Amino acid sequence: MADTIFGKIIAGEIPCHRVYEDDRVLAFLDINPLTRGHTLVVPKEPAATLDQLSDESAAALGRVLPRICRAVMAATGVREYNVLENNGPGAHQAVFHVHFHIIPRPGPNEGLGLRWAARSLDQGEAVELVKLITTALQKAP
Amino acid sequence: MADTIFGKIIAGEIPCHRVYEDDRVLAFLDINPLTRGHTLVVPKEPAATLDQLSDESAAALGRVLPRICRAVMAATGVREYNVLENNGPGAHQAVFHVHFHIIPRPGPNEGLGLRWAARSLDQGEAVELVKLITTALQKAP
Repeated sequence: MADTIFGKIIAGEIPCHRVYEDDRVLAFLDINPLTRGHTLVVPKEPAATLDQLSDESAAALGRVLPRICRAVMAATGVREYNVLENNGPGAHQAVFHVHFHIIPRPGPNEGLGLRWAARSLDQGEAVELVKLITTALQKAP
Repeated sequence: MADTIFGKIIAGEIPCHRVYEDDRVLAFLDINPLTRGHTLVVPKEPAATLDQLSDESAAALGRVLPRICRAVMAATGVREYNVLENNGPGAHQAVFHVHFHIIPRPGPNEGLGLRWAARSLDQGEAVELVKLITTALQKAP
């Protein structure tokens, strides 16, 4: 098990502001919030990135995510929010244990700021990608 | 059911570049990708935002998310990525049917750009929030 700060929180070695816990999932307040109510939802399984997480932990985490979102919105009175999960240091991951951020967005200049530089999908590229991704899914489900 | 473009894709009324499908979940290429391999994972249940999604659909979507991430990374050869789900027009949601973006990050200036203006969590605020969120979770699980 990677010895991350979240691993230590799960093991009870470091305290947290816990808001939810079950056999597979723990949720607690981010100690460096972007906005009031910023919450982290983590699997107890010590996977560094989402692609390394088991089906069982991923299903358990997915199942409770809407409930925790509802509770955070009820608690803060905010209706809009972003859910973000980063994988890899180059993709802004800072703690190498899977964590989903729930980030309330009380106003246009608060919360998660996004830069969205989209382009159009090329038809040939799409066909190639569908083939590659579906093949990868069949090889290693 | 809200008549969104994703609802029409799920109903088969609009084509998509499908990469995965089961009874509850559909995944397809974003036609306006941030980077090569940008994929959307959606529940078939027509929930506008994550807080409105049923436990069953959320668990089904959560369960397959790691598999689809693995396949997208295998297909693109990229190891880093962001998973993002937006809720509300003010939080960058453009289609009002729940969708998780899987956005490969091949390099530092490609993919999802984030602005991360964090502050420190105040102890009194934390205690109040834990009480509010745990109470909300108990009231409406």
